[in-house]
Amino acid sequence: LKKCTVALVGLGIVGTGLLQAYKMNYDKIENQIGSEIDFKYVVDLDLTTNRGVDLTGMILTSDFNQVIADPEVDVIVELIGGLSIAVEFIKRALKSGKHVVTANKAAIATFGPELRALARENNVILRYEASVGGGIPVLNTLAEKLIANQITDIVGILNGTTNYILTRMTEEGLEFEEALKLAQEAGFAEANPSSDINGTDSCYKLCILAHKVFGLTVDPQHIPTVGINNVSKEDIDYAKELGFRIKLLASAHKIDSYINLRVNPCLVRANHPLASVNAEFNAFFIKGNALGDIMLYGKGAGGLPTGSAVLGDIIDVYKGNAYPRVPEINAQMNTSSFLRYYIRLEVIDAPGVLGKVAALFGQHDISLESVVQRAKVSQVVPLVFITHVTEKSKLDAAIEEITAYDKVVKVASIMSVEE
Amino acid sequence: LKKCTVALVGLGIVGTGLLQAYKMNYDKIENQIGSEIDFKYVVDLDLTTNRGVDLTGMILTSDFNQVIADPEVDVIVELIGGLSIAVEFIKRALKSGKHVVTANKAAIATFGPELRALARENNVILRYEASVGGGIPVLNTLAEKLIANQITDIVGILNGTTNYILTRMTEEGLEFEEALKLAQEAGFAEANPSSDINGTDSCYKLCILAHKVFGLTVDPQHIPTVGINNVSKEDIDYAKELGFRIKLLASAHKIDSYINLRVNPCLVRANHPLASVNAEFNAFFIKGNALGDIMLYGKGAGGLPTGSAVLGDIIDVYKGNAYPRVPEINAQMNTSSFLRYYIRLEVIDAPGVLGKVAALFGQHDISLESVVQRAKVSQVVPLVFITHVTEKSKLDAAIEEITAYDKVVKVASIMSVEE
Repeated sequence: LKKCTVALVGLGIVGTGLLQAYKMNYDKIENQIGSEIDFKYVVDLDLTTNRGVDLTGMILTSDFNQVIADPEVDVIVELIGGLSIAVEFIKRALKSGKHVVTANKAAIATFGPELRALARENNVILRYEASVGGGIPVLNTLAEKLIANQITDIVGILNGTTNYILTRMTEEGLEFEEALKLAQEAGFAEANPSSDINGTDSCYKLCILAHKVFGLTVDPQHIPTVGINNVSKEDIDYAKELGFRIKLLASAHKIDSYINLRVNPCLVRANHPLASVNAEFNAFFIKGNALGDIMLYGKGAGGLPTGSAVLGDIIDVYKGNAYPRVPEINAQMNTSSFLRYYIRLEVIDAPGVLGKVAALFGQHDISLESVVQRAKVSQVVPLVFITHVTEKSKLDAAIEEITAYDKVVKVASIMSVEE
Repeated sequence: LKKCTVALVGLGIVGTGLLQAYKMNYDKIENQIGSEIDFKYVVDLDLTTNRGVDLTGMILTSDFNQVIADPEVDVIVELIGGLSIAVEFIKRALKSGKHVVTANKAAIATFGPELRALARENNVILRYEASVGGGIPVLNTLAEKLIANQITDIVGILNGTTNYILTRMTEEGLEFEEALKLAQEAGFAEANPSSDINGTDSCYKLCILAHKVFGLTVDPQHIPTVGINNVSKEDIDYAKELGFRIKLLASAHKIDSYINLRVNPCLVRANHPLASVNAEFNAFFIKGNALGDIMLYGKGAGGLPTGSAVLGDIIDVYKGNAYPRVPEINAQMNTSSFLRYYIRLEVIDAPGVLGKVAALFGQHDISLESVVQRAKVSQVVPLVFITHVTEKSKLDAAIEEITAYDKVVKVASIMSVEE
C-alpha cells in the first residue's frame, strides 16, 4: 500500500472514536508510517445524526456496494457489529480483495475459521484487536509478542458491565438489580444488557482468545457459560468474609491435551491481582511456560480506547502485518473438571444439621476447607462451605444427597473458586 | 536471514534462562518462523561451572574475537550486563554488521543514542526488550502496539527487590533492614543490593522508557532519584492509616512541552491498581490520549521470564523487525513540580504546636488535606500531614521555617503523593 484508503462501515460509538483517535494522533501516525490514512467513505444507514465528529472530505453513503466497487479502497473497517449484515459485509469485502479490520466479537467468535480462510484465499489481511479488551492490546501481545512462550492459562475479566455491577454490589452492599440500575445510569450497561449479564459477551471473547492462543476452533455455544443474574448480595458478603471477591471470569486452561473453557462467576482470593480489577475495567491474567504470570489491565470498552485499537489494526494492515497463522486444532474440551467450590445452603436450624451435611460431603470424598455457620436469626439459617479440590461428578452426587436431606431448605448457590 | 545463528555472550542467570526457554519452546518457534535458532557460540570467562543447561553442539569460548570473526554469526546476544566490557562488545558487534540483542539496562540507558546510531549506520537491528520489565513486553507494546496513541504518562514499579522489601514492611510491619534480610534470603535481593535500593536500577529503566515513549535523550544522572533506604515502618503505617501504600515509583509525565522524570518512594492510594502490585512483581501504568489507562503487570526479573524476552527479540531480529525509529528530542525537564506531599514531623508535645505548624504551611499558601496527631506517648510526638497540590519551592520554604521552629525536633520524612 502506498497510501492507505479506508472505508468505515458503521458510524456508532466505536466508529466515531476511531475518527477522533485519528484526528488526535494523525501527526504521530503519519510520521511513523510515512503515509496518511484517507478515510474516503463512511457507510451508515443513518446519514443525518450529528456524531460530533468532522466528516469533511469523506463520502457519506448508505450503499456498501459503492465501496466494494471502488478499487481505491484498501481497507474496510466493519464496525456495525452483530451477526447479520455485518458478517455478510466482511465476507464480501474479503472476497473483493479488500483487507478487513473489525471489532465484531460475535462475527469472529462464530465465523472465525471461515473468515480467516477467506482472507488467506484472497491474500488479504483480517485483523480484530478491538474485538477483545477494547484498548488493551491483548490479541497482539498473545499473537506476536509472547511467541517465545507456550501459554497454558488465560483467566480474564472480559466484560466491563458485569464487573461494574459486581464491584458496586461488593463495595456498597447492593443487590444485583440495584447495581444494574446504577450501571445503566452510569452508561456502563445498555438498556438491554442481557448479552453482558448472561455471559454471552465474555463467551465470544473467550472463543477468540482460545483461537489466538491454542489454535482452538470452538463453537461459542459449546462453552459452559453462566452469567451473574443469580449472584446475590449474600454470596458476595460470605465470599468477602472468607477472603475472596466474586468476579465473572472467562478462563481457558490447557491440561495435557485437553483445553478447559468456561465463563462463570467465581471466587477469587482478595490478594490476587484480578480481585482488584474493579468497576468497568477488564484484565487478562496470562501464564506462559517461560515468562510466568503477566496481567494486562485497562478499559475494555468505550469509543476512544476501542477506536484506537481499530486504528492500530489499520496501521498494521498498512505495514502488511497479518496475524501469524496459528495451526487450527479441534482439541477436546474436558468435561470432567477438578476445582474448589463455594456452596451456600439454607437449612432448618436444628441440632446435628451441620454434622450431617459435613458427613454427606465426606461420604463423597469431598473435604472442606472452610465452613461458616451464622447465629440463628430465623428458623432458616445459612450454611456456607468452601471445599478442597474435587471432581465435579463427586460434587454433583453430594449435592444431590444434600438436596434430598429434609433439613435442607435449598441449595442457594454453587460457584467455583479460581486458583 | 535464512537460518538464525546466534552467539550468546554471558552465561549467567538470564543466559541460562534463554537457553532453557528455547529448549522448552523450540517446536512452537520453529513452526512460527520457519527456521531453527542455532546457538553456535557461548562466550563466557568461566567455562567450567555447570549451569544445569545442555550446551551440546555449542562452541564454548572465552574469546569474543572468535564470534566477531565468524561470518555465520547473525546475532550477538549480550548478557554480561554493566557498563565496562559489555558496552565495548555491543559496539564491536554493531560495527561488524551483527545484529545485537541485549538485556543491559545500564548500557542502553547511558549509551542508547550512540548505540542506536551505530546500529543504523551499520544497517543492523538493536533490540533490548529484556532491559526493562523482564518478561513483561512493555517496550514492544509502547513502541509497536500503542502507535495510535500519544502517551502522556508512565508510572511504574520497575524494581522487584525494592517492591519486595516495601511489601514485607507493609504486610508484616518490619523495619527496612529486616525486610532487606528477608529479600536476600528469598533470592530477591543481591548480596550487594545498593543499585536496587538507591533507585539506580529503576532510573536506568525509566531512561529507556522515556526514550521509547517520548524520544527523550537524557543522562540517567540528571533524573532526580531517591531510593528506599529512608522509608521507615512509621511512614508505612501512617500511609496505611491515611488510605495509601508506599511504593518506589519511576514516573514520566509530559506536561505541555516539558517532561518530568523522577524516581522516588511515593504514596499511592490503596485502591489504585499499582497499590496492589506486591512482592517481586513489576507493573507499568500507562496513559494514552485515546486508550486511557492500561497497566502491564508481571515478573520483572528471573532467568526464564527475562530469557523469554531475549528470545522474543531474537525472533524479531530474524523477522527483520527493528524498533520503529523515534525522533530523538532533548526536551526540557521541568524542575518546578506541582504535587501533593506527605510530611512527618517529630515535635515537642506542647500546647499550640499543631496550630503553629499549620499556620506556617498556610503562610506559604499550602493547604492541608489530612492531619494525624497521635496521643502522647513520650515528650516527642509525631505530626503527619498530607498537603493539597503545591509548588515544590513553596514546600521548601515552608519546611525551612518549620525546621527552624524550636518545638520541631526534626522533619522525619517528606514524600510525594502520586495521583
